[in-house]
Amino acid sequence: MGRRLFKELERSYGFDEVAIVPGQVTINPELTSTKMTIGGLDFDIPILASAMDGAVSPRFATLMHEMGGLGVLNAEGLYTRYEDPYSTLEEIISMPKEEATRFLQKVYSQPIQDHLIGQRVEEIKSAGSICAVSFTPQNTKRMSPVAVEAGADIVVVQSTVTTARHMSTSYRGLIFSELIETLNVPVMVGNCVTYEVAQELMETGIDGILVGVGPGAACTTREVVGVGVPQVTATLECAAAREDYFRRTGRYVTVITDGGFRTGGDVCKAIVSGADAVMLGTPFAQAEEAPGRGFNWGMANAHPELPRGTRINVGTKGTLKQILYGPTTATDGTQNFVGALRVAMGMCGAYTIRDLHKARMVIAPSIKTEGKYFQMAQ
Amino acid sequence: MGRRLFKELERSYGFDEVAIVPGQVTINPELTSTKMTIGGLDFDIPILASAMDGAVSPRFATLMHEMGGLGVLNAEGLYTRYEDPYSTLEEIISMPKEEATRFLQKVYSQPIQDHLIGQRVEEIKSAGSICAVSFTPQNTKRMSPVAVEAGADIVVVQSTVTTARHMSTSYRGLIFSELIETLNVPVMVGNCVTYEVAQELMETGIDGILVGVGPGAACTTREVVGVGVPQVTATLECAAAREDYFRRTGRYVTVITDGGFRTGGDVCKAIVSGADAVMLGTPFAQAEEAPGRGFNWGMANAHPELPRGTRINVGTKGTLKQILYGPTTATDGTQNFVGALRVAMGMCGAYTIRDLHKARMVIAPSIKTEGKYFQMAQ
Amino acid sequence: MGRRLFKELERSYGFDEVAIVPGQVTINPELTSTKMTIGGLDFDIPILASAMDGAVSPRFATLMHEMGGLGVLNAEGLYTRYEDPYSTLEEIISMPKEEATRFLQKVYSQPIQDHLIGQRVEEIKSAGSICAVSFTPQNTKRMSPVAVEAGADIVVVQSTVTTARHMSTSYRGLIFSELIETLNVPVMVGNCVTYEVAQELMETGIDGILVGVGPGAACTTREVVGVGVPQVTATLECAAAREDYFRRTGRYVTVITDGGFRTGGDVCKAIVSGADAVMLGTPFAQAEEAPGRGFNWGMANAHPELPRGTRINVGTKGTLKQILYGPTTATDGTQNFVGALRVAMGMCGAYTIRDLHKARMVIAPSIKTEGKYFQMAQ
Amino acid sequence: MGRRLFKELERSYGFDEVAIVPGQVTINPELTSTKMTIGGLDFDIPILASAMDGAVSPRFATLMHEMGGLGVLNAEGLYTRYEDPYSTLEEIISMPKEEATRFLQKVYSQPIQDHLIGQRVEEIKSAGSICAVSFTPQNTKRMSPVAVEAGADIVVVQSTVTTARHMSTSYRGLIFSELIETLNVPVMVGNCVTYEVAQELMETGIDGILVGVGPGAACTTREVVGVGVPQVTATLECAAAREDYFRRTGRYVTVITDGGFRTGGDVCKAIVSGADAVMLGTPFAQAEEAPGRGFNWGMANAHPELPRGTRINVGTKGTLKQILYGPTTATDGTQNFVGALRVAMGMCGAYTIRDLHKARMVIAPSIKTEGKYFQMAQ
Repeated sequence: MGRRLFKELERSYGFDEVAIVPGQVTINPELTSTKMTIGGLDFDIPILASAMDGAVSPRFATLMHEMGGLGVLNAEGLYTRYEDPYSTLEEIISMPKEEATRFLQKVYSQPIQDHLIGQRVEEIKSAGSICAVSFTPQNTKRMSPVAVEAGADIVVVQSTVTTARHMSTSYRGLIFSELIETLNVPVMVGNCVTYEVAQELMETGIDGILVGVGPGAACTTREVVGVGVPQVTATLECAAAREDYFRRTGRYVTVITDGGFRTGGDVCKAIVSGADAVMLGTPFAQAEEAPGRGFNWGMANAHPELPRGTRINVGTKGTLKQILYGPTTATDGTQNFVGALRVAMGMCGAYTIRDLHKARMVIAPSIKTEGKYFQMAQ
Repeated sequence: MGRRLFKELERSYGFDEVAIVPGQVTINPELTSTKMTIGGLDFDIPILASAMDGAVSPRFATLMHEMGGLGVLNAEGLYTRYEDPYSTLEEIISMPKEEATRFLQKVYSQPIQDHLIGQRVEEIKSAGSICAVSFTPQNTKRMSPVAVEAGADIVVVQSTVTTARHMSTSYRGLIFSELIETLNVPVMVGNCVTYEVAQELMETGIDGILVGVGPGAACTTREVVGVGVPQVTATLECAAAREDYFRRTGRYVTVITDGGFRTGGDVCKAIVSGADAVMLGTPFAQAEEAPGRGFNWGMANAHPELPRGTRINVGTKGTLKQILYGPTTATDGTQNFVGALRVAMGMCGAYTIRDLHKARMVIAPSIKTEGKYFQMAQ
Repeated sequence: MGRRLFKELERSYGFDEVAIVPGQVTINPELTSTKMTIGGLDFDIPILASAMDGAVSPRFATLMHEMGGLGVLNAEGLYTRYEDPYSTLEEIISMPKEEATRFLQKVYSQPIQDHLIGQRVEEIKSAGSICAVSFTPQNTKRMSPVAVEAGADIVVVQSTVTTARHMSTSYRGLIFSELIETLNVPVMVGNCVTYEVAQELMETGIDGILVGVGPGAACTTREVVGVGVPQVTATLECAAAREDYFRRTGRYVTVITDGGFRTGGDVCKAIVSGADAVMLGTPFAQAEEAPGRGFNWGMANAHPELPRGTRINVGTKGTLKQILYGPTTATDGTQNFVGALRVAMGMCGAYTIRDLHKARMVIAPSIKTEGKYFQMAQ
Repeated sequence: MGRRLFKELERSYGFDEVAIVPGQVTINPELTSTKMTIGGLDFDIPILASAMDGAVSPRFATLMHEMGGLGVLNAEGLYTRYEDPYSTLEEIISMPKEEATRFLQKVYSQPIQDHLIGQRVEEIKSAGSICAVSFTPQNTKRMSPVAVEAGADIVVVQSTVTTARHMSTSYRGLIFSELIETLNVPVMVGNCVTYEVAQELMETGIDGILVGVGPGAACTTREVVGVGVPQVTATLECAAAREDYFRRTGRYVTVITDGGFRTGGDVCKAIVSGADAVMLGTPFAQAEEAPGRGFNWGMANAHPELPRGTRINVGTKGTLKQILYGPTTATDGTQNFVGALRVAMGMCGAYTIRDLHKARMVIAPSIKTEGKYFQMAQ
């Protein structure tokens, strides 16, 4: 009030700070549909596995397909740098904690081999699965055609922060509209967190948008460079852009909230925030079938000069099927993500994901459970 | 301000975030009355014990009646599934922690036996007590007449989230107005948390409404499915609906805040938020007379595919009489709930519960007591 | 927005949530005056010691006078119930923790002896000190004349919550205007926390008002009965009442923030909030000269049915002189309260307490110092 | 609403409470320029080392110059009080923790020797470095000419709180406009935190302004005297003053946020808040080349009567070069500050520090990383 400030700051919110309000009508979970579409391709569940080497191998991508979701293979990771990535995985896992970051920096300094890109795509396709591969903007133009030629169904262009207009001296900025025309498969791009960038990206003709910069604790982008937006607010902005774009053009772009999830409740909150789907890393790295066997790390962790995050021991929580569909005896929300989503949809009276978008949400800081407190609810 | 968002989020509050402001006039606690009414039945204190198997057995319901309150028996719990529920209770209590959830899932998969419903009601009635039994919406239509025939005075219809309009394939939605006509006893329904649902439920003719979805730490509904509203805000909304409904129809529906209580202070805050009564589980499970002998669990904890919460060791704090009326040497607010309520009423100048509704309340995050801090107040 | 709620809640603030903003002019601390007045009696420093048996004995009240402040003797505590209170003190101190509350309940069930009230007043007066004694509203009318007759200079009427209009069956409500006329010495009344009550109390003609209900951690009034207002907001309201009353009547009533202080910074914040003085318990119980020898407890802790708070081991931090004036090597703000106040006055360009009232304050949640964080400031 | 308060409180924010929002365009970090200017002197990086004896010795100032930044020498510290400050440093470091504050009080009671001021300046100048020395307002008038005569390039006038108008009995208030005329070198003044004081100071003709009062945990000014403003808000106010002053006069004064930094992210946030440069103490005390060899302390810590803060063991994190430029395997943001700044500039599409001023920032409380949580981001 009268106070002069250099700029105004708006409040933003993360998963831990909100809660979904039950609806005016409820429905039985069995009546709900969790279907989701990306660029004309249909999926039974709105859940993607992140392009992280500890979570998605070609074999894991196939399993995700069988479960109704989509596993994205990192086309610039171990699987395309090493003929035998599994022995390298073994080394990463067995490395002492204090040497992990240095070792990741070394492992990821090996060159990407084009023929391995094709080979990994073929491994996934030969199992009859939808195949999605991810590239960084720097390599997309040259490498993504290799993947599509080998049969890839979806190309993901992903970096910590991606915009429609990037300035660089070392490579000519990637033109998404040209890329889409060249590849002729659905293209997903990320990550972004604002209305404006989401809108510009959708204008280029892409089919999906990944939302999330620095949302989590395993990645330390927010600590190291101070950049990031909590996922609820990021999703609320990008979903607003999708709606406005849809209203104007009639084309519906899939919004996928990527990262920062811990529980099924977080997944539900992302969708109530406007996401059409979610992309998770760690919960899948916790599957028995995950290649990281209880360890996970991101590409930013291997940055040669400014690593962000490190290898973390996430443990193993159960089979992929249990994690997605239960049944479970875990009571902390880390298993049966689809079951949790259906229960939340039932409580909100939502038959479809699109219905769940209409649910009300409130700001409600999460309850800190302290040993001496015992609270009770039905 | 100018920022485009998919939806707006309102702030909500829990017990730990508010404090009651003393009134302009004070009265001696001895002058206060804590009387409360549900559907024409009068109670000396506005305190109910939750329909949880570790808290309310037929014997405990009788004790609650003697103390002036009301203990609700879970008509779909151990007491109606087992001829001898006490040996099953023994098994639950002695089960190692890591096997508790799995064992609860098994125990509660046994069928409910109609004749046991009648038998338990008769046990309570034969002691001369008001008898309240609770059912889930799925079983209410078929089972509640059995209980009423056996003498039940109040029927409670309760699930995590209940609305006046529920859609299902497996059973025809329960019509509350029909139920009320059939049973001809007071009906309480819950749980709900919003103005709209509270209003719709009151329109059906019910006598009491239970407020609370996912308020506590022992139940993990908010973690697992992301749904829940902190109790102060939930009560403020439902109480607003009660006032509007009362103003329009002249019929006063009892609003009962259910769950999330830890101290006498929380009980007082619920009433200042507009509740006519409160329903507690854990504090009663901590009574020496509780059947769970220091352990407690909710029905959601036994969900076969998506359990929420688990069996918790709540310990034993004193006799039911001490917990309700003191005297006590406990200084943390977990005993003498009625005494605490009377003291708060005195500080706010409230002769009745209805007067306490007029007290002022402020947002005041609770003080974290750290070892090195010593603060003092009169 | 459009949401219907039973009532609106305003945000309130405590010491840990605010920070003082330096002024536009600074002055050397040596130039500041910390003088304060209550009902025409002048004091060098605006600091009172609470009427707590572990902090203020007749001897300690004398020491406070010598230091320029005021120690209030509890006229309903050990010193007026026991001929030899010191052996009882000894017993309280040596009691095991788990028996402390029960023992306090017993100790304070002994009757107050009128002749001891007079005797304690005389002990203080014979040392040449200003003597202030405190009573509860129940006993004020009968007992306070005894104290005044013996020479008491100030009468304090104090209970957890005090209003100008109290309703009771067991004693006729105390009429402050009559009391003031009878006693003919300055009267201070508390505790209150709102504009309305402060205003009503000032209208009765009292000279000082004590602000604070449930502000601290040692007292658990806020936990047990849910009632309390954080001290910054409570002081902001009562100081607003003082200003309005002063503008209207020309009579300036001293506002004393009572309780919840931990550091010198808290004292400064209370004054910037509008207090003319502060009343501290625990920091004085930590003096080497304190009768509790490192232990402290309040009267509410001994409530026979609903104790709030308990005996706490506050330790011993230094001499009274060091606590008030330093010098010190303690760097956590718990010593040299007057030095801290002068430094803050200097930074805000305040020559007097009244000047410090004009300083700006911001909401700024306190910094949690974690082991791994090292931050630096000049 | 309608509530009467003595004054209004505005919300303020610190580094941990905000996050930078990525821009609409991104650029490669290699394209960014981190250049900064103070009073016509150019620096490659906008980073200064604080005038703290554990961080900046004459030798360290030279190293900072070689790295493109500026190390400020405390002209009233060990280096100007002792012919051989290194043996005193040794004593401070080896002192047991409980005696450290008392020993600092003793060490800094030795007089400042004028000839040592000249000698230290010459040590820095003889290495070809830009030399900045800092004085308190009390000593500036007499001592700063000695430093300038010996070749000092920049004079810093610094105390906890500095205003253009200071009242004192012991010395005539320092007139900055006169000082500037006398010295004829760039003058930086601090610390301040408000629009009004920043504006008044700029009017005197100074070239740089230091922002920050009580921002950190190592200094306990906020605890001890309650005074302080979190750095984001302090910087937002002072930067607003700089803009308004620049618009009116055409003269651009450098705003340097001083203190409270923990990570590279904090540095980026200060600049997005409007700072032209930052001044860090502890991160430099953690350099292998730092004179404190892993220990640090501020001048306020040695206050004879009211010490604020103490000697802290900050440890050693790497070489100065690694701390500023990496490469690093540390993933917590405490190394490669310049690299982090360039990455943030790239994400915000900022070619220059001035461009980064235009980035958007949101309020986003920092994520508490708890052991059991594993979150993932790209």
